[in-house]
Amino acid sequence: MTGYIEVFGHGGDVETAASRFGGNATDYLDYSANINPLGPPKEVLEALQQGLHSVLRYPDPGHRGFKALLSERLGVTQEQISVGNGAAESMALILLGLAPRRVGTVEPGFSEYRALARQFGSEVTHAMGREELNWRARPEDIEWLMEEVDLLFLGQPNNPNGVQYPLEVLHRLARKAEESDTVLVIDEAFIDFIPAAERQSLASDINTYPNVIIIRSMTKFYAIPGLRLGYAIGNPKYIQAMTRKQVTWSVNGLALVAGEACLRSGERYEQQTITLIAQERERLVAALESYGCSVTPGEANFLLVHVPHFWTAASMQEALGRRGVLIRSCAMYPGLRAGHVRFAVKDARANDRLLEVLGSVLERSEDQNEDLAVADQENQQEYTQHSEKIKGGRQL
Amino acid sequence: MTGYIEVFGHGGDVETAASRFGGNATDYLDYSANINPLGPPKEVLEALQQGLHSVLRYPDPGHRGFKALLSERLGVTQEQISVGNGAAESMALILLGLAPRRVGTVEPGFSEYRALARQFGSEVTHAMGREELNWRARPEDIEWLMEEVDLLFLGQPNNPNGVQYPLEVLHRLARKAEESDTVLVIDEAFIDFIPAAERQSLASDINTYPNVIIIRSMTKFYAIPGLRLGYAIGNPKYIQAMTRKQVTWSVNGLALVAGEACLRSGERYEQQTITLIAQERERLVAALESYGCSVTPGEANFLLVHVPHFWTAASMQEALGRRGVLIRSCAMYPGLRAGHVRFAVKDARANDRLLEVLGSVLERSEDQNEDLAVADQENQQEYTQHSEKIKGGRQL
Repeated sequence: MTGYIEVFGHGGDVETAASRFGGNATDYLDYSANINPLGPPKEVLEALQQGLHSVLRYPDPGHRGFKALLSERLGVTQEQISVGNGAAESMALILLGLAPRRVGTVEPGFSEYRALARQFGSEVTHAMGREELNWRARPEDIEWLMEEVDLLFLGQPNNPNGVQYPLEVLHRLARKAEESDTVLVIDEAFIDFIPAAERQSLASDINTYPNVIIIRSMTKFYAIPGLRLGYAIGNPKYIQAMTRKQVTWSVNGLALVAGEACLRSGERYEQQTITLIAQERERLVAALESYGCSVTPGEANFLLVHVPHFWTAASMQEALGRRGVLIRSCAMYPGLRAGHVRFAVKDARANDRLLEVLGSVLERSEDQNEDLAVADQENQQEYTQHSEKIKGGRQL
Repeated sequence: MTGYIEVFGHGGDVETAASRFGGNATDYLDYSANINPLGPPKEVLEALQQGLHSVLRYPDPGHRGFKALLSERLGVTQEQISVGNGAAESMALILLGLAPRRVGTVEPGFSEYRALARQFGSEVTHAMGREELNWRARPEDIEWLMEEVDLLFLGQPNNPNGVQYPLEVLHRLARKAEESDTVLVIDEAFIDFIPAAERQSLASDINTYPNVIIIRSMTKFYAIPGLRLGYAIGNPKYIQAMTRKQVTWSVNGLALVAGEACLRSGERYEQQTITLIAQERERLVAALESYGCSVTPGEANFLLVHVPHFWTAASMQEALGRRGVLIRSCAMYPGLRAGHVRFAVKDARANDRLLEVLGSVLERSEDQNEDLAVADQENQQEYTQHSEKIKGGRQL
């Protein structure tokens, strides 16, 4: 058994891992999905327990309670908010509602941008990040791309490298968006994990830039990815176009219950999360570097890592997978290499376990790795095919 | 305050009712949504309680556990099944995946067929049901329509009139679908409420008819509309096309947990539901007719009713709404009239309450109804406008 496990193009697929490496899906230590290791705020779990009866009713198709809380928190009107069945639906609604002929992405980046854009009939072109900029693209390269496309997706912080563009670059790009009549979609799915003072966000300037849409996810920071909840804020004209393409009740009732509880859960949980992630990320970086890994200095709750010589993403994924630890291969991201993987940043206990398993795997001598080296060649071929397929269309 | 409350084009919107008629949204006796009055099987509520932790993980994007159970139950392969975020998403995926230029509907029918078809860029034409056929269309009228369209939606039983087409008509239409190169989408969202022996379904003939897709809903029969779960079965070629347009993780994790529990919950709950609905429907029909209402002899868990002289759907909705009972106006369905409403069939206690409230409302003399008669004229204008708007596009 060789080959990738990202059969759906994403991390967090413990079912595929279990069928591939054995064991129970729920027993995996999942470093492939970037979810808050604290779990949901206890108020959210309580609200879900108490709100279970809400499954008996249709969800509010207007998402009114959740929107009212968001509006208050973000200082925008409800007409500037579109609530989605996960951030992925918000992206899909932008593409369906605005129907851009050409879409731009910055690679390496979240694969859904180009997958969804192609899925809904757009041509996709991209700018390339540069290794010396920690896989950011040069602002001028993004500006050139904006001349060519109707809509551009930008991750902030970007996935899988975890870095932000500085605020002045965002202002520059937002102005360029107006000048070139391009819609700039900034995906802030992971921005809540960054200390408020360090976040580089145009959210408070959303009224200044009519061509900017910001997407956020509720499910990563609040650790409820099973429930699906995200939103977009921006120009009411675009928000209306998105709403017109939304299937009635696409956001489920428990997601709305949980979302309202999240927004009411207060700052303590937020602060705890941010502190934990900063501490543990620093510790992981130091340990991984001491193991001979090369780590991109990300600011989010995940790290882009190049594994040491003799290893590839595939062989590392398999070796860790057999030991119950699931990681994300990044070998199929355009621009990245066969040795790139992504680790989530989790709590101290989980990270101890990761480092222990990783240490024992890396300790094995080169001789013992011979079988893996052979497997790697096979994997590499499959990866290349997979990568080609991803470049050509949706992996489902 | 006058006018319709179907601001999102559907029943079950207790939030709008509460803001219109006062009181708490959750206190309404909701006769406007057609949900199993027994509530979910207890195994399903237990599974949700125990499965709450599944919100911590991404849902399985391949829906593998639920698909395996469905496959076994329906005698189809997993390649013949597409799982949707509610039956509404299944409809949307059919339209997105097959991209029919022209879509046909049979009116009166579920408004989402034409709303979604227009939303995703199809032209919509329709055949009209006939009052003397209990609002069924003549088979030859549907066949003529199939000559003109690429895809046709048919409700079985149809909403809002609750009647089925006989199996021989379905076979005839399925053959016609092949002959005319039309995809025939049969929406069986409510068919589980009909005794197995009386169900007119092509589900067991799905392999015979490559142009037939059947849609089913899990959320109405199993009383979990807040969770969103539906599916489509049909030709793997169409199922693949649907999957390619589906946003990753659009079906949430708790919906999958609940769906699997529903399919495992056994026949007893199913039989209880079917018996209850048949008994209570018969009782409601008799009582409503004794009140001077005219009732279409439906077979499902709802009834299309024409209210007595001096009343319209609007005034009845308002009069009952003020007394905490929510009903569905059907005045905006093409072909129906200002006095048409839809009542769900609920349990004996709820139906007693409905009949009591309805009785007291109807008892009022014509004099007392003068104010309502004035309001009716206003309502009627609004209904007409609303109906026009619905005919022209999506109500959101």
